Amino acid sequence: MRISAFGEVMMRLTPPEYLMLEQTRELRMDFTGTGVNILSNLAHFGCETSLITNLPDNRLGEAAKASLRQLGLGDRWIGQHGNHIGSYFAEMGYGPRPTQVTYQNRHSSSFGVSGAADYDFDSFLEATDLVHICGISLSLTDQTRAAAFALAEKAHSQGKKICFDFNFRPSLNENNEAVFMREQYERMLPYCDIVFGTQRDLTDLLGMKADETLDNEEQFKSLTKTFMDNYDIELFAGTFRIRENGSYYLSGFLFDKNHYVQAEPREIINLDRIGAGDGYAAGVLLGYAEKWALEKTVAFATANGVLAHTIQGDVPLTTRKQVEHIMLHPTVDLIR
Amino acid sequence: MRISAFGEVMMRLTPPEYLMLEQTRELRMDFTGTGVNILSNLAHFGCETSLITNLPDNRLGEAAKASLRQLGLGDRWIGQHGNHIGSYFAEMGYGPRPTQVTYQNRHSSSFGVSGAADYDFDSFLEATDLVHICGISLSLTDQTRAAAFALAEKAHSQGKKICFDFNFRPSLNENNEAVFMREQYERMLPYCDIVFGTQRDLTDLLGMKADETLDNEEQFKSLTKTFMDNYDIELFAGTFRIRENGSYYLSGFLFDKNHYVQAEPREIINLDRIGAGDGYAAGVLLGYAEKWALEKTVAFATANGVLAHTIQGDVPLTTRKQVEHIMLHPTVDLIR
Amino acid sequence: MRISAFGEVMMRLTPPEYLMLEQTRELRMDFTGTGVNILSNLAHFGCETSLITNLPDNRLGEAAKASLRQLGLGDRWIGQHGNHIGSYFAEMGYGPRPTQVTYQNRHSSSFGVSGAADYDFDSFLEATDLVHICGISLSLTDQTRAAAFALAEKAHSQGKKICFDFNFRPSLNENNEAVFMREQYERMLPYCDIVFGTQRDLTDLLGMKADETLDNEEQFKSLTKTFMDNYDIELFAGTFRIRENGSYYLSGFLFDKNHYVQAEPREIINLDRIGAGDGYAAGVLLGYAEKWALEKTVAFATANGVLAHTIQGDVPLTTRKQVEHIMLHPTVDLIR
Amino acid sequence: MRISAFGEVMMRLTPPEYLMLEQTRELRMDFTGTGVNILSNLAHFGCETSLITNLPDNRLGEAAKASLRQLGLGDRWIGQHGNHIGSYFAEMGYGPRPTQVTYQNRHSSSFGVSGAADYDFDSFLEATDLVHICGISLSLTDQTRAAAFALAEKAHSQGKKICFDFNFRPSLNENNEAVFMREQYERMLPYCDIVFGTQRDLTDLLGMKADETLDNEEQFKSLTKTFMDNYDIELFAGTFRIRENGSYYLSGFLFDKNHYVQAEPREIINLDRIGAGDGYAAGVLLGYAEKWALEKTVAFATANGVLAHTIQGDVPLTTRKQVEHIMLHPTVDLIR
Amino acid sequence: MRISAFGEVMMRLTPPEYLMLEQTRELRMDFTGTGVNILSNLAHFGCETSLITNLPDNRLGEAAKASLRQLGLGDRWIGQHGNHIGSYFAEMGYGPRPTQVTYQNRHSSSFGVSGAADYDFDSFLEATDLVHICGISLSLTDQTRAAAFALAEKAHSQGKKICFDFNFRPSLNENNEAVFMREQYERMLPYCDIVFGTQRDLTDLLGMKADETLDNEEQFKSLTKTFMDNYDIELFAGTFRIRENGSYYLSGFLFDKNHYVQAEPREIINLDRIGAGDGYAAGVLLGYAEKWALEKTVAFATANGVLAHTIQGDVPLTTRKQVEHIMLHPTVDLIR
Amino acid sequence: MRISAFGEVMMRLTPPEYLMLEQTRELRMDFTGTGVNILSNLAHFGCETSLITNLPDNRLGEAAKASLRQLGLGDRWIGQHGNHIGSYFAEMGYGPRPTQVTYQNRHSSSFGVSGAADYDFDSFLEATDLVHICGISLSLTDQTRAAAFALAEKAHSQGKKICFDFNFRPSLNENNEAVFMREQYERMLPYCDIVFGTQRDLTDLLGMKADETLDNEEQFKSLTKTFMDNYDIELFAGTFRIRENGSYYLSGFLFDKNHYVQAEPREIINLDRIGAGDGYAAGVLLGYAEKWALEKTVAFATANGVLAHTIQGDVPLTTRKQVEHIMLHPTVDLIR
Repeated sequence: MRISAFGEVMMRLTPPEYLMLEQTRELRMDFTGTGVNILSNLAHFGCETSLITNLPDNRLGEAAKASLRQLGLGDRWIGQHGNHIGSYFAEMGYGPRPTQVTYQNRHSSSFGVSGAADYDFDSFLEATDLVHICGISLSLTDQTRAAAFALAEKAHSQGKKICFDFNFRPSLNENNEAVFMREQYERMLPYCDIVFGTQRDLTDLLGMKADETLDNEEQFKSLTKTFMDNYDIELFAGTFRIRENGSYYLSGFLFDKNHYVQAEPREIINLDRIGAGDGYAAGVLLGYAEKWALEKTVAFATANGVLAHTIQGDVPLTTRKQVEHIMLHPTVDLIR
Repeated sequence: MRISAFGEVMMRLTPPEYLMLEQTRELRMDFTGTGVNILSNLAHFGCETSLITNLPDNRLGEAAKASLRQLGLGDRWIGQHGNHIGSYFAEMGYGPRPTQVTYQNRHSSSFGVSGAADYDFDSFLEATDLVHICGISLSLTDQTRAAAFALAEKAHSQGKKICFDFNFRPSLNENNEAVFMREQYERMLPYCDIVFGTQRDLTDLLGMKADETLDNEEQFKSLTKTFMDNYDIELFAGTFRIRENGSYYLSGFLFDKNHYVQAEPREIINLDRIGAGDGYAAGVLLGYAEKWALEKTVAFATANGVLAHTIQGDVPLTTRKQVEHIMLHPTVDLIR
Repeated sequence: MRISAFGEVMMRLTPPEYLMLEQTRELRMDFTGTGVNILSNLAHFGCETSLITNLPDNRLGEAAKASLRQLGLGDRWIGQHGNHIGSYFAEMGYGPRPTQVTYQNRHSSSFGVSGAADYDFDSFLEATDLVHICGISLSLTDQTRAAAFALAEKAHSQGKKICFDFNFRPSLNENNEAVFMREQYERMLPYCDIVFGTQRDLTDLLGMKADETLDNEEQFKSLTKTFMDNYDIELFAGTFRIRENGSYYLSGFLFDKNHYVQAEPREIINLDRIGAGDGYAAGVLLGYAEKWALEKTVAFATANGVLAHTIQGDVPLTTRKQVEHIMLHPTVDLIR
Repeated sequence: MRISAFGEVMMRLTPPEYLMLEQTRELRMDFTGTGVNILSNLAHFGCETSLITNLPDNRLGEAAKASLRQLGLGDRWIGQHGNHIGSYFAEMGYGPRPTQVTYQNRHSSSFGVSGAADYDFDSFLEATDLVHICGISLSLTDQTRAAAFALAEKAHSQGKKICFDFNFRPSLNENNEAVFMREQYERMLPYCDIVFGTQRDLTDLLGMKADETLDNEEQFKSLTKTFMDNYDIELFAGTFRIRENGSYYLSGFLFDKNHYVQAEPREIINLDRIGAGDGYAAGVLLGYAEKWALEKTVAFATANGVLAHTIQGDVPLTTRKQVEHIMLHPTVDLIR
Repeated sequence: MRISAFGEVMMRLTPPEYLMLEQTRELRMDFTGTGVNILSNLAHFGCETSLITNLPDNRLGEAAKASLRQLGLGDRWIGQHGNHIGSYFAEMGYGPRPTQVTYQNRHSSSFGVSGAADYDFDSFLEATDLVHICGISLSLTDQTRAAAFALAEKAHSQGKKICFDFNFRPSLNENNEAVFMREQYERMLPYCDIVFGTQRDLTDLLGMKADETLDNEEQFKSLTKTFMDNYDIELFAGTFRIRENGSYYLSGFLFDKNHYVQAEPREIINLDRIGAGDGYAAGVLLGYAEKWALEKTVAFATANGVLAHTIQGDVPLTTRKQVEHIMLHPTVDLIR
Repeated sequence: MRISAFGEVMMRLTPPEYLMLEQTRELRMDFTGTGVNILSNLAHFGCETSLITNLPDNRLGEAAKASLRQLGLGDRWIGQHGNHIGSYFAEMGYGPRPTQVTYQNRHSSSFGVSGAADYDFDSFLEATDLVHICGISLSLTDQTRAAAFALAEKAHSQGKKICFDFNFRPSLNENNEAVFMREQYERMLPYCDIVFGTQRDLTDLLGMKADETLDNEEQFKSLTKTFMDNYDIELFAGTFRIRENGSYYLSGFLFDKNHYVQAEPREIINLDRIGAGDGYAAGVLLGYAEKWALEKTVAFATANGVLAHTIQGDVPLTTRKQVEHIMLHPTVDLIR
């Protein structure tokens, strides 16, 4: 299954060795984004992938494109126009000090100013079976919204699978009313086959009401069933983060039309606190593409999400071999 | 309240990535010292600060001064004479391996050879409301002792608040007799309003006797009351380091003339094992300057001390926003 | 003489060791800008300086502000609002390979979106004798233009000296018509006392005509005289870059109302090809502030410009001692 | 024209900042090789390229492959088997100190142990119009020789263009007799259309005799004509390195069946002394692919070779825009 | 007691900050190997040590030799011939992500191609009392096997003590049959006085049978007694790695002819997961050389092994002072 | 010939990439000194060397000692006492910007506080044939002077060769009167066999008068002859630095009792402006030890001095092979 994504590429700038911005003049530059992360991981799993996006038409855009190729992404539909890339600074947290992300202007980025006319969706869709559309495109600008809808409609009408994640960021939606955002989501969801999200996405963003007479798990299942029925969703997936005895655990869940599975929790040990969600999503998409049993999928995806937290940067670069190794030999800490 | 400090600036040289000196040719250079640390933190809290000290009259002194400005310190009373700066190497520990500090010559430093005549205390005091005098000046050289006493007397006579910390370092006092050091402390304390210390400072340095018929806490309270009464101290503050189940916790305490408060302990997770005490002191001084309730002060200062351990280097660079965030949302590990 | 500047602060990101963007993940971060560069250099010459600008109201803005303090700039009028800083990538050239600057979005920067109302010009002007206004503010946005004019008018009416440089960048003016830009310059120049520019600025930007019956030098003198008379300019200054036998030489010139002086050319040996103009300007302003003879000023400023080319980054950090040393001992290459 | 190459990928390890191996523990890792260099440059010129080679079947091989993608190479025919990559250490020279290359074992590398059966030449050739075969494959091992001949024969029989360079390295041929090597070259040349070499390659490797009654240039032309006629070579190209007044100049030459052109020499200023030949070759192949006049080709290729010397590492990463810029504006040293 | 070793020196290349190979171009270079590690540690304990091995006869070999001197090893018997050094890449693990070692060709290394005739064992043995022979030499090549046997026979016949470790690595023995390897071990052991190994070495490599009627500890003791009696072994030593409540503990054991001691377990906190075994071995050899009680030896060696895990790289660089400090003051985490 | 030295070891701290101290937090640490430099170079030439000095009795001293071993120095007579090492910061110059050395306190260093009683000169002298005594020991402290004289006397009385260099540094002699320094030199020279110096050392330090009726060269020869006769000096050596057409050239000279030779000048291209003198001296001592003709010695030593300028740091690490290579093939800039 050829898997592709539509989404923003961002430049991430990270001080070394847990330093804060004030403490250093050295920054590490990476290129990242939900689509980048998921596709890169899938490419490392052996899938054929391609990203459709726009990068600046200058040397920074060229460097970004080279970096995306290095990550394993097909670059045929990566255009270059505009002159700006959204960026963020990640001051890596340690212990009780949280990782602090500081965004620079994303609205004027090459991606932010690109509308449907700036992409060749037709040839792009010919070469893909499943396309991931990042929910951030619904928050960003009128152009990104228009492009996302145009792509979703076209893909859906051609029978391509669409995967969508809510990915709501309050900081990107300070000027968007809740009702406006709900309309965007409601417009997108009918096109979608696979959705990544949380219970809060259903209640807070879509305004669905949980049945409070049920216990938590049943509430969630009932709410999800309604949601999946409403929009004819094939797969709904996400993760829980569980705190126990001062440790954190990750546990993925997965709904198809008839089943609900939740993975055995795995302890999270953080090298980088950003990017586990994309690792989980990549695992789910791999299982979907290869028609694995839900149980296998959710276990693999959770292990992959936990591994993503042990890798510097947002981009999960795990291979199948690595994921399978920690599933089979969880206590081996040295391979030679 | 304008807060200032008198004390030594040191150069700290640290190998990267937990390497030991033998293992590297690369060192990170920082400028530090008790006064530097406390003032820098207060400047990050929004206070107006200035340091009075002497740095070498050469390019290293200029670089140090630039670094202090960067940290937020007012540099108007930072003089340059002499040609040496005290320095230390910090080999960062990991797990059971302790952080190892190796000092280079401090006695011949610009600060070490500067006496009272080498400072313009008068104009300095005009521009400050509270001055912190680091106890290390009493251990270092005859000149630093003379300067500290001259400043303390002058400040006290002008009604400025004086904050003092014992900061006794055996390695700096190999040639000073215990009785000699006690005389120095006894000469300094009558000028002081706020003192940072521990029970051991009162018993071992001042030779006070604890009432062993009391339980530990009451012993400490009674001892402290005597001490504060003897020297008319307004505030006595310090920290406990508590070990429990293989973890360490920090808990600050605070006495005013009538009350004793101790903070809820917070777990210590160490990125850098040096500098938490100064973070705690900065928190206490902020509460004092802004007339907070003791409970609020001690909780804020303890949280700040714990954050200081998550920051590379001795200098706590926390902002109010950061401290308040971990107080309100202790389990959030990523902010974006 | 207290000297200040109004202008944009930019983040410069530079790959190490002459690498191109594609070749590295490591970038060096500096904060720069014409005003920053000139004031930093003047601060290193011992002048009291301050910058008026706006930086992002986030952790990057704070880090930038700390960096400016480190450079020696007074930060009292550095505000923080907006959430973006203009940035550029400098791929350092070598031999025939030119240094390549790639700009990221400057129009949406905190400075770009700040108008006159976003600054406290009144208190700022009270504390300055001469203010430098960078010509880039006339190219950037409506707000920066409005702020520049408001400041110039206010300063002029209070008898403060105004220094202006044309600093025309084609890449920033792709959407500005020539006639529009001429109007801006013509509106600014009547407020100005000192102007940095070139013959081309007078002819191409202001549309002045050179008298082609004269030889080159006389043409330039005559054109400059007309220009200075027109706008009642006290000092007009700039540099020539001379190529001879495969080497380049820098030679500054200086006009006051009655005299023209040009410096002995000095060979340019480039470590960093950006920033010599600001070094020259700083030298001229020092001479002006201290009422040096034109000959001394132009020689010092030229030497300083040449030194600026031997320093990494845009910011000239030379001291008087360094400039005077290479003037007196041009062949000494090691001082110890 | 789709251009491809067959050749070894090597790992280059370089100490930073002109340090020698003894002086550092830090190395920069790059992946390089004649084929890599030429194709990467052509990809930066906008050509579609692909490399056929074998890399280790382990994590290093994967990292190498990712790096090649980043350089712009198509990776479809890059196999992974064996467990070793040839490597070399480059201690960068400075002034009179030569750059010192130290090779590690190349014979046991994945490339060295791969014979014709280890490649899918058929599908590879379907997707290419011109294939570059590096002469080093004739020196390395029996397998690499066999693979090179198999590929050349197959490509030639299908009417694909073949480009070959002598690339003779004494250090790789310590165990190969001169006569043995001559046989290899003589077996390869009949398949070739474009050859890169020098007069010494013709005389010393092929044993051809120059007509010493002619002057130097005529000798060279006559020798080349014979060589090209013998093997029906379409294009013969190479460079001269000229020393004049203590400076070095590069000047490319180009023969087709009827013409000889030599480029205007350009001064060499070395950042990295390795890789200019491959830059020259990439320029020639671009001109060939786009059917440029010889004069244009040789000028572009020479400029590109000179630029290659200003880039860290062996891989020339120049774009058309950069090469054209230094041809049009040789004295511009800063672009913004 | 003069202690020496015979074994391979390898180059270890490690990405910084837990990055994976794909994520970096920077590598840290170290020289390591079982013999190197043990001798370096013993040198840091104050012993006179020397290594007998062969390094490449080129600049890399010289750099390696310089590095070994820096570690404290006597270099008199370190020869230089051949042109290759075995190497490995260590991608440092974090949390559940294992450290991943990728070997490059070791068989063609200078050590791998050196047989008995390539060493001056006679003069070497004159200057040593105890020689450590690494078991890897039995796996590597015919030459290394021959050299190891020649050395062992000669040393034994001269009454020198021989220390041997099994150090079996499946990845190095893919082409060696189990029965072949058993013969090698059986040929070596009669020469040996001290052996490092595990129960599995005795059963799987030597084919000994455990008496399954006994409990685990008795099984191990009985097996070991038989082994030691069979080969007249003076000391048999090794470590257990114990998992408890999610933490790992190291506990060394030691058998002499009559006693069995096991150390109090110590928690392992890993900075680098490679090298603790060599730290343990160095501790045991120190105790042996200085005739300590077994209990003291095993406690010291275990503490040293745990410290080795807190040091970057394979080479344990602990001093006696450091080991004794964590034995006496296990909770002190900062020394100044 | 076994060659040794008595002298101070200093720590050199250097910012990377020509940055000034203010511009960086990263420093490179090296250990250096005249004796270190000369012996290290001789060790690279294959000589057996040892240094007698004292280093701090702490972890920095241990790291320094390890570094000296790495450079090839015998460490048997390197003691550890005291707690300070003299240090200097080297801000690397570029073009007209001079390299700027800033010294930190040298008088209180372990070397500075060590007198004759702190060294075991007897066993040291047994193992050496020629000892180099650095003139800096005569400037530093009473203890270093006393130690130097004790060593010189003892060595001379045992018929060991003594090599001395004036190495006068004004910055180290601010408190020493000229007449005092002359007495020291006059006391040392009678013990000496080889002296490194300049004409100015003879006139300014020793107060000798040049015969101004002679031309420059004859003046120098006559002066030197007197000097050598006075003190029975076997060899007097030094270098000229010649400026021509904007370039600098190095040319060594050498006097024995009957001859004067001067080397063909070689152009200086500076990577590091410190350390060429020590490279020259090492070359001279090698020629002396191996009884080369003066012409060969002076040519080799001059080439070595020029190479020393192309190496980062003070320590010349050239091998014979490298020096001979640039003598034979001065235009080869790449060896592979």
